[in-house]
Amino acid sequence: MAEGKSFAATDRTTPTRSRERASYDEATVHAILDEGYVCHLGFVRDGAPVVLPTLYGRVGDRLYLHGSTGSRPLRMAGEQGADPGLAVCVTVTHVDGLVLAKSAFHHSINYRSVVVHGTAHQVTDPEEKKAALDALVDHVLPGRAADSRPGNDKELAATAVIRLDLREVSAKIRTGGPNDEPEDLGLTHWSGVLPVSPVYGAPIPAEDLTPGIPVPAYLSAR
Amino acid sequence: MAEGKSFAATDRTTPTRSRERASYDEATVHAILDEGYVCHLGFVRDGAPVVLPTLYGRVGDRLYLHGSTGSRPLRMAGEQGADPGLAVCVTVTHVDGLVLAKSAFHHSINYRSVVVHGTAHQVTDPEEKKAALDALVDHVLPGRAADSRPGNDKELAATAVIRLDLREVSAKIRTGGPNDEPEDLGLTHWSGVLPVSPVYGAPIPAEDLTPGIPVPAYLSAR
Repeated sequence: MAEGKSFAATDRTTPTRSRERASYDEATVHAILDEGYVCHLGFVRDGAPVVLPTLYGRVGDRLYLHGSTGSRPLRMAGEQGADPGLAVCVTVTHVDGLVLAKSAFHHSINYRSVVVHGTAHQVTDPEEKKAALDALVDHVLPGRAADSRPGNDKELAATAVIRLDLREVSAKIRTGGPNDEPEDLGLTHWSGVLPVSPVYGAPIPAEDLTPGIPVPAYLSAR
Repeated sequence: MAEGKSFAATDRTTPTRSRERASYDEATVHAILDEGYVCHLGFVRDGAPVVLPTLYGRVGDRLYLHGSTGSRPLRMAGEQGADPGLAVCVTVTHVDGLVLAKSAFHHSINYRSVVVHGTAHQVTDPEEKKAALDALVDHVLPGRAADSRPGNDKELAATAVIRLDLREVSAKIRTGGPNDEPEDLGLTHWSGVLPVSPVYGAPIPAEDLTPGIPVPAYLSAR
């Protein structure tokens, strides 16, 4: 397989431990990002860290996050001054399994995560904003943006969108079984992996949905 | 039902929007924390935010996080000086459903999250450290700590544990269907909720597991 594009490792995207689990491969990073829709957005307020869950979308090498124009981080990202924008860290994590070792010490989790560092800026261009909001809806459920009423001027004005370029990025991945010490292998504790994944239930129609409107194919496919 | 204990709301645990979704009820907070095992730990390094996924456990009104003694945030939490400890924000999020509205604007997610602000300190007392590590293993799978080989002195020395008191805490919860505008209800887009939950697969024995060791009951219950 040809070598794909990679992100350059920086001091803060180089883990202090388990470096063999780190990846800077762009395709790997994009795949992890595209499988999720909830990220954890970190920013600094009055010198202290704040971490909030929020939705995101990806368009090419940019991440988009949105919220009310009154939301604190989105307001902060729009502030202008000597140093415009908001320093953020956006992290996306998928848990794939519980790793049970014979020793308490070697218990672990199989996971795939992406950490993005950078400065987020408010999106002011109306076309970029509309495309970002479509991407956010389609990230949750591909095909949904085209099957809903687009935002009107009032809604677009009430929504702030911030952009974060994918530049300083790393993925971290753990797979496989437990790594027990050789001297523990005779112990009778069960060891192995319990896989875990998100599973979607049957769609629940809204109470005010007109009867007879079918569940769309992009939804029943989940 | 009797009123339970509540956390006092502070400036930073009061959301700027959707305040009706915020809760400070201790039992609600504990239930959300106890259902998860992966949190997103935020801290500040060189003035910039860092958000990393990590395991946690709860014992009473304390959260415990662990990692290698070489791990950056755990080292920082152990640094002594005029202002010992590490300012952190720990966030736990469960996604319960995708909320599909007729308008793009009203799409949302049903979720339950807890945000904890505070200063984390390294645990130095050996007994507290052992109890914290048991809690971390049992948080992933209740009953597992007693069914594994406890950490030895070398392993305990290689593991750093930090403690975060549950003082400045809030939960945020969204439930229910979409909140569409009355004028959109005649549109023919399907609207409602697609429930989502983590589902555990069949346990995969470790390659080096001696054949015949049964899957424990606390595991097959998942």
